[in-house]
Amino acid sequence: MSHSPLLTDLYELTMLAGYLEEGLADKPAVFDLYFRNNPFEGGYAVFAGLEPALGFLEQLRFTEDDLGFLDGLGLFKPGFIEYLRGFRFRGRVTAPPEGTLVFANEPLVTVEGTLAEAQFVETALLTIINFQTLTATKAARICHAANGAEVVEFGLRRAQGPDGGLSASRAACVGGSHGSSNVLAGKLFGLPLRGTQAHSWIQAFPDELAAFRAYAETFPDSTILLVDTYDTLKSGLPNAITVARELRERGHELRGIRIDSGDLAYLSREARRMLDEAAFSAVKIVVSNDLDEFVIESIRSEAGQVDIFAVGTKLATCSGEGGGALGGVYKLVEIDGTPKLKITGDIAKSTLPGKKRVLRCAEPGGRFIQDVVCLVDELPQGGETVYDPTNPLRRTTLPATARMTDLRRVVMSGGLRTTAAEALDCMANRCRGELSLLPSGCLRLINPHIYKVSISERLKCLQGSLIDELGKKVV
Amino acid sequence: MSHSPLLTDLYELTMLAGYLEEGLADKPAVFDLYFRNNPFEGGYAVFAGLEPALGFLEQLRFTEDDLGFLDGLGLFKPGFIEYLRGFRFRGRVTAPPEGTLVFANEPLVTVEGTLAEAQFVETALLTIINFQTLTATKAARICHAANGAEVVEFGLRRAQGPDGGLSASRAACVGGSHGSSNVLAGKLFGLPLRGTQAHSWIQAFPDELAAFRAYAETFPDSTILLVDTYDTLKSGLPNAITVARELRERGHELRGIRIDSGDLAYLSREARRMLDEAAFSAVKIVVSNDLDEFVIESIRSEAGQVDIFAVGTKLATCSGEGGGALGGVYKLVEIDGTPKLKITGDIAKSTLPGKKRVLRCAEPGGRFIQDVVCLVDELPQGGETVYDPTNPLRRTTLPATARMTDLRRVVMSGGLRTTAAEALDCMANRCRGELSLLPSGCLRLINPHIYKVSISERLKCLQGSLIDELGKKVV
Repeated sequence: MSHSPLLTDLYELTMLAGYLEEGLADKPAVFDLYFRNNPFEGGYAVFAGLEPALGFLEQLRFTEDDLGFLDGLGLFKPGFIEYLRGFRFRGRVTAPPEGTLVFANEPLVTVEGTLAEAQFVETALLTIINFQTLTATKAARICHAANGAEVVEFGLRRAQGPDGGLSASRAACVGGSHGSSNVLAGKLFGLPLRGTQAHSWIQAFPDELAAFRAYAETFPDSTILLVDTYDTLKSGLPNAITVARELRERGHELRGIRIDSGDLAYLSREARRMLDEAAFSAVKIVVSNDLDEFVIESIRSEAGQVDIFAVGTKLATCSGEGGGALGGVYKLVEIDGTPKLKITGDIAKSTLPGKKRVLRCAEPGGRFIQDVVCLVDELPQGGETVYDPTNPLRRTTLPATARMTDLRRVVMSGGLRTTAAEALDCMANRCRGELSLLPSGCLRLINPHIYKVSISERLKCLQGSLIDELGKKVV
Repeated sequence: MSHSPLLTDLYELTMLAGYLEEGLADKPAVFDLYFRNNPFEGGYAVFAGLEPALGFLEQLRFTEDDLGFLDGLGLFKPGFIEYLRGFRFRGRVTAPPEGTLVFANEPLVTVEGTLAEAQFVETALLTIINFQTLTATKAARICHAANGAEVVEFGLRRAQGPDGGLSASRAACVGGSHGSSNVLAGKLFGLPLRGTQAHSWIQAFPDELAAFRAYAETFPDSTILLVDTYDTLKSGLPNAITVARELRERGHELRGIRIDSGDLAYLSREARRMLDEAAFSAVKIVVSNDLDEFVIESIRSEAGQVDIFAVGTKLATCSGEGGGALGGVYKLVEIDGTPKLKITGDIAKSTLPGKKRVLRCAEPGGRFIQDVVCLVDELPQGGETVYDPTNPLRRTTLPATARMTDLRRVVMSGGLRTTAAEALDCMANRCRGELSLLPSGCLRLINPHIYKVSISERLKCLQGSLIDELGKKVV
């Protein structure tokens, strides 16, 4: 998955041309990528998409074909096209590893470089990281609702375009899903692949039993039978049990059955009972049909007997309140050594100026207390007072015993990666581990506890003085 | 944009292997692609995505690398891998041209071929056509709300992955948007490209006026100034007018201003007044900030003075009630010459069996009356009675003067296209033309009039007899 440098908004190119003409292109600049609201009105987000984003940065170069296209737009001078021919990203990137829990209003990715290179990569970084972080978060919510049952992602056919499906399959694994139906994602990212069969398979045979037998013959050790084509309990289950017996006589075991319609809580309980009575207690029950974290929670609360939740559309497209898109933004916070601020009528939308550090403050046992954003040369200690960035009247004192650790590290320097690529299950383990350390109210699906992200006193003062300065300019 | 044949669900491959073992792979089969509910709870959908779907079918072949990956899964026998090496799509495809208005429960794409080839392409066809049809429909709704003002798509950064953004840019043009910020979409699809500048451009200069001047110097004939960084009316507009005067002195004209926050109806009215008073009535007003069809309608209803609506997230991700994903399905309707049906508890979810034809019934003046789905060898005439597929008690008689035209045509035969590729603006023109012929209540954004899709008497009888037959089998 390498992406073209043309995967960008036109204004990144026109601004680049402008910076070059104005002699600003080589000024050192710092940009922060962050979001202002946790997705799904939830209590956290799962950071994902870094690896493909770094791949984009490392391989960024314009082909002759790209340059010919841009030249043909009639917008740019020949000198600019020539400049693009040698254009590379040689900057520095600071970010958490994928699978880290992150929160609204803290810098996730910080890009330092020339104004030209750091500005130009805005659109691609946002496109990649916004959607993967959103999907990883949705997957984590769904896995939390599944409470240990397996979750697999079956969403490709309803995804937002082919690569919407690919990105979703990858990021869902970061957030904890156990596999995908998407074969290309299996090839590209090494995901475990899963599948059953479609209703058309059943329909292609004279009757359901013949269809079940044929599938089991081809895949004697990996058959999951779709039992709801005609009637789940009267036809599908009895036929599946017949085939399970025939398989066992030949030394194989039926892997599972899938229910794709109807009352999934009720049908799964009945299916479990019928399978157990027939001595097939190891046969797994898979359910699907427009699932999300709320449907799964209700199936579990009604004692549904489900081993595997196959989640499609709502995972792959991240549907739900506060879903669909993560509103990540990419803001200039320093240029030529001078901290910068963007203000608006709403203080919550003001940026945090300057080069910053993000610290996670935890109890000695590891449980997270809150995150603190400070200037890059600070290290807040237990006992220090920190401030709510959206309301300076609200403050907290960090507990004396708190342990502070950096949330982020330098992952690229001089345009080259400084850390080895991680496996997806390593990211998923990190995510699982961090979720167990988060105050449990933050995991609630609706109206969660809001995890604090505070700013240091020095950062608060810098922001305040820049706001005063800008106020004088405008009036 | 060629897509790998691995862009598929695992079960398409396991079913293919099974059909091959069972000697069913070469049986002739017919599949219909359709959706059950209009997206956005609206009155219509705009068909899109055909061209990339045909490209996928035409180029479908497994590389050695793909085959090695599949072999390594340990799921398939060597003979199957060998079979895949020569696997091609050589079937026949019937579909409407892109930009055609389509409705729930009528077959959109019909694929005829061997069971193997027609089944295998399910996932890719759904992925491509579901999302593009959804986006084209969203764009048409937004353009309808804009009522002649220009709509441009700025959504790449919030899209569902890089290609989610690309597909969205293309399909939005089919539905009527006038351009995109996405440079790669411009290159691949020949879309008009648009852009302004980011707040970071303004912040990179000592003050707003200097930033405006610098941009206008680089792009004297295409400058659109972002006026809301500090204060839209007190700072942004006066500075923009200063720069517009300076440009005019040098023989150029300011193209426009963009407002990205605040009360867009009020600010656009004030901006128009200030620009007009300064003799810049040709300067266009662009607004952006989380727009969709409902926000645009409210801005217009408050007499907002907007020339161009720049729509991002909500267009590129198709957000809104009944949005996010189009629930297109792909169902087997005939095998080996025998019509097939899938039933469920809900008659509305039963498939329409057999090879079918879709006719649009219109008044002599061209205004659409309703669509009729019938068997492939029928041609219903004015005066004939047709039936509601979800409620056999509801029927209509086609007016005697009605004109019937086929909605679809053969677009691929023997795996090769039978029609030339169309330009996007040709599709957009078709869409615009058809919208003007649709009963106007169907265009309403909320609670629209439901356009009728009926079935012929023969199709109703075939469906009924198959339901009876299946009923006997299950009990």
